[in-house]
Amino acid sequence: MTETDTGTTTGTTTRSAPANPAAALAPRLTGSVVADPDAMLAYRHDQSMLTAAGTPAAVVRASSVDDVVATLEFAYEHAIPVVPRGAGTGLAGGANALDGAIVLSLERMNRIVSIDVAARTATVEPGVINADLAAAAAEHGLWYVPDPGSRAISTIGGNLATNAGGMCCAKYGVTLDHVATIDAVLADGRRIHVGSETRKNVAGLNLAQLLVGSEGTLAVVVGATMRLRSAPGTASTVVAAFGTTAEAIDAVGTIVARTTPRAVEFLDRTTVRAVEEMTRMGLDTEAAGLLLVQCDGRDASGEAADVVAACASAREVYATDDPEEGEQFMAARYAALPALERLGSTLLDDLAVPVPALPAMLREIEAIALRTGVTIGCFGHAADGNLHPTVVFDAADDEQTARARAAFDAMVDACLALGGTITGEHGVGVLKRPYLCRQVGETERELMAGIKRVFDPRGILNPGRGF
Amino acid sequence: MTETDTGTTTGTTTRSAPANPAAALAPRLTGSVVADPDAMLAYRHDQSMLTAAGTPAAVVRASSVDDVVATLEFAYEHAIPVVPRGAGTGLAGGANALDGAIVLSLERMNRIVSIDVAARTATVEPGVINADLAAAAAEHGLWYVPDPGSRAISTIGGNLATNAGGMCCAKYGVTLDHVATIDAVLADGRRIHVGSETRKNVAGLNLAQLLVGSEGTLAVVVGATMRLRSAPGTASTVVAAFGTTAEAIDAVGTIVARTTPRAVEFLDRTTVRAVEEMTRMGLDTEAAGLLLVQCDGRDASGEAADVVAACASAREVYATDDPEEGEQFMAARYAALPALERLGSTLLDDLAVPVPALPAMLREIEAIALRTGVTIGCFGHAADGNLHPTVVFDAADDEQTARARAAFDAMVDACLALGGTITGEHGVGVLKRPYLCRQVGETERELMAGIKRVFDPRGILNPGRGF
Repeated sequence: MTETDTGTTTGTTTRSAPANPAAALAPRLTGSVVADPDAMLAYRHDQSMLTAAGTPAAVVRASSVDDVVATLEFAYEHAIPVVPRGAGTGLAGGANALDGAIVLSLERMNRIVSIDVAARTATVEPGVINADLAAAAAEHGLWYVPDPGSRAISTIGGNLATNAGGMCCAKYGVTLDHVATIDAVLADGRRIHVGSETRKNVAGLNLAQLLVGSEGTLAVVVGATMRLRSAPGTASTVVAAFGTTAEAIDAVGTIVARTTPRAVEFLDRTTVRAVEEMTRMGLDTEAAGLLLVQCDGRDASGEAADVVAACASAREVYATDDPEEGEQFMAARYAALPALERLGSTLLDDLAVPVPALPAMLREIEAIALRTGVTIGCFGHAADGNLHPTVVFDAADDEQTARARAAFDAMVDACLALGGTITGEHGVGVLKRPYLCRQVGETERELMAGIKRVFDPRGILNPGRGF
Repeated sequence: MTETDTGTTTGTTTRSAPANPAAALAPRLTGSVVADPDAMLAYRHDQSMLTAAGTPAAVVRASSVDDVVATLEFAYEHAIPVVPRGAGTGLAGGANALDGAIVLSLERMNRIVSIDVAARTATVEPGVINADLAAAAAEHGLWYVPDPGSRAISTIGGNLATNAGGMCCAKYGVTLDHVATIDAVLADGRRIHVGSETRKNVAGLNLAQLLVGSEGTLAVVVGATMRLRSAPGTASTVVAAFGTTAEAIDAVGTIVARTTPRAVEFLDRTTVRAVEEMTRMGLDTEAAGLLLVQCDGRDASGEAADVVAACASAREVYATDDPEEGEQFMAARYAALPALERLGSTLLDDLAVPVPALPAMLREIEAIALRTGVTIGCFGHAADGNLHPTVVFDAADDEQTARARAAFDAMVDACLALGGTITGEHGVGVLKRPYLCRQVGETERELMAGIKRVFDPRGILNPGRGF
């Protein structure tokens, strides 16, 4: 479909972009428009490394759905690219600015509209911080489950855009699994409401699930009703240190076959040493692999005992029913990335393989680190097969940067060869675009492009990102 | 998009349909083609009531993916509608034949290709019966969870087409939640592979979830890899009889807030009496509502005790940890529809409302039965708010049929007014098409139609069904 076709269909035609979009937009908005180059710098990049970012024409800080509609109507009319943006905590460059684009920031739309205790749902604006929603739910004895590593700083809108995961996915699923309905605005400014308050719904195509993980390429999310659960009670925690990574991953297979922990986290030796260096918490720095496992539910303690039994090959294993002590252990996992960041610049990957392929994937990562001469610290959500191997390098050194990139490429290759995915929970963004065509076939990409044209016929929404 | 556009895009043009599609197709297939009018009768209808069905031009009984490809290439070339069909157990007319169409039966593609115990997945052809997959998984100590009422006779392909639910959805989700990957054939004969073996995957748009519940309108499913769980251990069962439906539903609210049962089933008085009449199992026929609750997991017995406590307002409550006795109680639920069918023709509905709206929905159903003078037996999956109110009438009597239809319409009205969905797990098919535009907005339907054109530009796949 060409732009001319579209213009004909919708009865509008593309006008050339005004010289000053910010000035043209400002009177239409209750929120503010930023056009000062220095002030716009904060909206150029997300938290990814080695991803390109352009200079936007304007940054709209929307304060209402009407602001989003007005911005998109304007952008659609003038065919100006729009980059939707939450808190900018993304790790794949999906919210990086594009030259001449309007960055549409949703961070000011941060109201928790309502919590329905009987229905166990929360209705929120897209800029609500994940941890704020979790805290508000907890006040009602309810639990917002998805817990990406960024939960203290990332927004629900951003979590929806990337279908964010986290630690509790092992038992409770990813963001997708906690969505009831989504309100969004199409590229041309029309509003849509998709999904259902009911847990079961097959009335029409599943547009809600299609929007989740679409990285701002199909529509701009302006609200969502998310499902809550009853608080899970006290968790029991198991820490197990293994002499070899193979033993650690063997134990993961046994754990998931016999029990259903809410989190099964893995840290390799490089990561354990970096964490111990930073925290001095007394981790076993001679271990080749550390597992941190949390069980919840009616028999957390009994389940933890079964986890201990599954870790029979461990050098050392320790279980605790004390929630505070448990969180102290889990802190080792939360510290993984900050600890590796102390060693240099980091290029964080987000690969997932079927669980039985984890040992092979870890062997490949070790071999790649040796071959390319870079340090790779590897940690991640073992029960989901989702690893975050992190290349540590000196970004100021071109030769090291090239080797880091080579290691990164080689890890993606290995992951695809093992039947894995190039991104489990961070999204394609800019960072993974070069690899997508090796995972997703030509016909499937044609379908995705066709769907994109249905939602966004002029291609203004986050062009060149995602699929 | 017009057909001429499409023809140009794909490099093929529409040819007029041959006089005898069966004869033209037969030499291209390893499976068989049925064109005898009597033999084709068995492929005209699914199990729905009051749904129109046409006379097909041919029935293809595919025995391989190549047969499906050949059939679709032929149908696409000649713009002949194709109605994909599993076991024909649908309840909304989605697999009813259309005049002049090719019915594409997948029931002979019924091989369980493999079960991967380590990855806990099963790869199947679409014609595999749900219960056969469950039995094959059980041989490995694994569990295929989705358990629609039709599980003994319905296929995985059909379950995917309608995103079939069942009883265990309360805890474990619907068919959608158990899909890893889907292999399908597009209208023009091209094959696609969507989804991921990994539990987390955000590489591109979620085409797998889009196919699930699309009722054969986007592509023909020719294979799927479904996720399995470890066997859940012994279930504990609670039966509670209530003096009023309000008390029963109040108890449901308490149960789902405090516990996570795998099934919470409700039967109203009409249904209980019909079941007792048929089975003589000793149910309390004076009760206004019966709850059947099953708990599994590490502390099934303790959880069942909490369920009993939540049923404090019951006339009578009984719990058992004996699995055989538990299944005897659950048999009352399985008997609901057969028991009502003994009273006359039945028009089975499939409405879902948010759980807090269940009492209002049940009151509406009672009022509608009184007002229209028909019998309505109501049962369903209470924890999901998913009810199957079943109108009992004499289909040979036009006046009664009209009243049955009026009651059916009024129930859909009430459901929509309460924020519900017109179909929780049976699909839109033919039966629910008239109501869809009242649940799904115009813009959302435009998007669905646009997506349909992307997958099936000539509109040959199950036209007029679903969204």
